[in-house]
Amino acid sequence: MSQPSDPGVISTAPRRLKIIATGVAVPGTVLVHDELDRRLGLEQGSTFKATQIRSRFISTTETAASLAADACRATLANSGLAWEDIDCLVAASGTMDQALPYNAAMIHAELGLAGQRRTTFDICASCMSFLTAMDVCGSLLETGRFRRIMIVSADISTFTTDPANLRENGIFGDGAAACIIEKAEDGDASAIIGSVSVTLSEGVDLCAIPAGGSRFHRRVPGSNADAVFQMKPRPLFAIVAAELPKTLSRLLDQTGTAMDDISLVVPHQASYLAVRHIIKILQIDPAKVVNISETHANQVGASLPTALHHGLCQHQPRRGEKILLLGAGAGVSIGAMILTY
Amino acid sequence: MSQPSDPGVISTAPRRLKIIATGVAVPGTVLVHDELDRRLGLEQGSTFKATQIRSRFISTTETAASLAADACRATLANSGLAWEDIDCLVAASGTMDQALPYNAAMIHAELGLAGQRRTTFDICASCMSFLTAMDVCGSLLETGRFRRIMIVSADISTFTTDPANLRENGIFGDGAAACIIEKAEDGDASAIIGSVSVTLSEGVDLCAIPAGGSRFHRRVPGSNADAVFQMKPRPLFAIVAAELPKTLSRLLDQTGTAMDDISLVVPHQASYLAVRHIIKILQIDPAKVVNISETHANQVGASLPTALHHGLCQHQPRRGEKILLLGAGAGVSIGAMILTY
Repeated sequence: MSQPSDPGVISTAPRRLKIIATGVAVPGTVLVHDELDRRLGLEQGSTFKATQIRSRFISTTETAASLAADACRATLANSGLAWEDIDCLVAASGTMDQALPYNAAMIHAELGLAGQRRTTFDICASCMSFLTAMDVCGSLLETGRFRRIMIVSADISTFTTDPANLRENGIFGDGAAACIIEKAEDGDASAIIGSVSVTLSEGVDLCAIPAGGSRFHRRVPGSNADAVFQMKPRPLFAIVAAELPKTLSRLLDQTGTAMDDISLVVPHQASYLAVRHIIKILQIDPAKVVNISETHANQVGASLPTALHHGLCQHQPRRGEKILLLGAGAGVSIGAMILTY
Repeated sequence: MSQPSDPGVISTAPRRLKIIATGVAVPGTVLVHDELDRRLGLEQGSTFKATQIRSRFISTTETAASLAADACRATLANSGLAWEDIDCLVAASGTMDQALPYNAAMIHAELGLAGQRRTTFDICASCMSFLTAMDVCGSLLETGRFRRIMIVSADISTFTTDPANLRENGIFGDGAAACIIEKAEDGDASAIIGSVSVTLSEGVDLCAIPAGGSRFHRRVPGSNADAVFQMKPRPLFAIVAAELPKTLSRLLDQTGTAMDDISLVVPHQASYLAVRHIIKILQIDPAKVVNISETHANQVGASLPTALHHGLCQHQPRRGEKILLLGAGAGVSIGAMILTY
C-alpha cells in the first residue's frame, strides 16, 4: 500500500544504444552581461550578479531550423557518415519553429534533404525533450525499427523572453545540438542502463508560454494572454528540489549504480545556480559535472545535448564508462538516464 | 545503384502491440453546412457542394487539453482499466495547445493526475502524429520500457482556419481521440506487422501555420505572417497521389500482405474527396474503408484515431484480423501501418 504507484516510470530494460557523434551550432551574435546591463539600463555588473551568466548566443537572423541544420551538418561531419547512413531524423526541441508543420519536417527541408526519403518526427517534453528522445530512440534501435538516428534539438528563446524581466531574460540563450546514435553491436557494452521520466503536473503553470497554440490564439476575442515566457522560479525550484534527488536515487538503486561509478554527469543547464545546487544536493564531485551555463545560459531543449557535446569533448570518456544525464523542465517533468558510453 | 536510398524507412521488425480500447470526444457545438453557408453569406448548399462535409464539431469553450482529457476518460472507461494500470501518456496531436509546456503535460494536469507519477511526452508529425506514436510505442512496449501506454490526439483548428476561405474552413473540425495499447502476450498474434513513414519536404510550404513559434513571432519587428492555416491543395495532393500508392505497395510487398488480407482500412480523413480518391487509386473495397469525414471533417491529428475508434465500433473486427492505417499530413509526411488486431 505504501508502494509508489509508478512501476513503469523507471525502466532498466536493456537497450543497446551507442553515441556515434555529437555536434552543436550557435547563432552568430554573442550578448555579454555588460551589454545586457546597458540595454536594460542597469548598473554594470547587475545581470552577472543576478544570473552568473557571462554571455549567451542570441539569434538575429537565424531560425530554429537553420540552427538545427547547422548542428546536424556538424554532427554528420564529426561522424564520418553520410545522410544515406541515417534512417530517421528526430527533432527534440522545447519549442516550435512554426505552429505547423512540425520541427523535424522544417529541418529536413532546411537541410535540403527533400530528395532523400527519410522518416522524421518530433519528440517534445520541453527541456527534457532530448532525454526523452534518447529514451524512445533506444527502444526504436533495439527493436530494429531504424538502424541509425539523428536527434537534433534547437530552441530560440530570444523572442519569447521578456527583456524587462532580468531573471528570465538573463538566464536564456539560443542554440542547437545534435547526436547520431545507433544500436550497439553484440559484445559492445554501449547501452541505456536505465531511465526515468516523471511528470509533476501540479507545476504545469509555473513555467509557460500561454499563447502560440490553440488555447490563447490571437484570433480568440478577449484573450489577453501573451506569447511571452512566464516563470515562477521559487515554487518551480521547490518541486524539482523535492523530487529530483529521490527519483535519481531510485534510478541508481534499481540499476545497481553508485554515484562513484559515473564518470560524467550532464545536467540540463537550467541556470548557473541550478547546476551548482544540483551538484550540492546530489553530492556529486563537481569535476565530473558539465557546466557551460556561464557561456551558453539556458538553451531550453538544446541545453542538454549541447552540454553533452561539450562534456564529451572536454572529458573524453572512454567506451564503457558511465554517463548520467538529468534535469527538469516545464510540465513540470523531471528525468534522468544512465548510459554506458 | 537503382535501389531507393531509404532502407530504414520501411520496417517489418516484429513488435507485439495490442489495442485494448479506444475512445473519442468532440466539442459540444455542431456546425452544419447550411449554417456555414449563412455565416459566409453564400447560397444554401454551396459549402456542401464544395466540401461534401455535412457537419463538423467546433470548439467554443473547449481547449485541446479538455477534449483530450475527455477522450482519455472515455477510453479508460471502455478499457475497464484504472490510471494505475497506465505507465505513460503520449500526446500525438498535430498542433500545440500552448507554446509551452508540451501537450501531454497540459493533459496530465487537466486529468487531475498531478499526484500520479507518470511519464508523459509528445510525438508530433502533424496529421501523422498518431500513426507515428503507434510506431514508436510499438518499440517502447516490445522492449519493456512501458507496460501500457495511453496515446491521445486532440486538435482545435477552429481558431486557426480562415472563414473567408471556404475550402480551408469547410474541411476542418475539432475533436480528440485516445487509444490504450499494451504488449501482446506470447501466443497472441496482435502486433505491428510493418510500418512506413516518409517525409517529402519539397512540400514543406504547402500546408502551414507560419506564426505561433519562434520563426514568425509576434514580437519580431516587421513580421507580417499570421497564425492562420495556409494550404495549397493542388500541389499538396499531387505529391501525396504520386507517393502514397507506391509507398503502400512496397509496405504490402515487404510484409507479404495482399490488400484482400486486410479487413479494415483507416485513412486519415483529410477530406471527403481525398478519402474517396484513396479508395479509387489504391483499389480498395469501399466497404472496408472508414469514412467519417461527412460528419467530422478533417480533425487534423485527432482524425486518424477518431476514424480508428469509429471503424472498430462499426466493423467489430475479430482478433487476428488485419487493419491498415494510412495517410498524409503537413511536412509533407506520408505513412502507413499494417496491424494484426
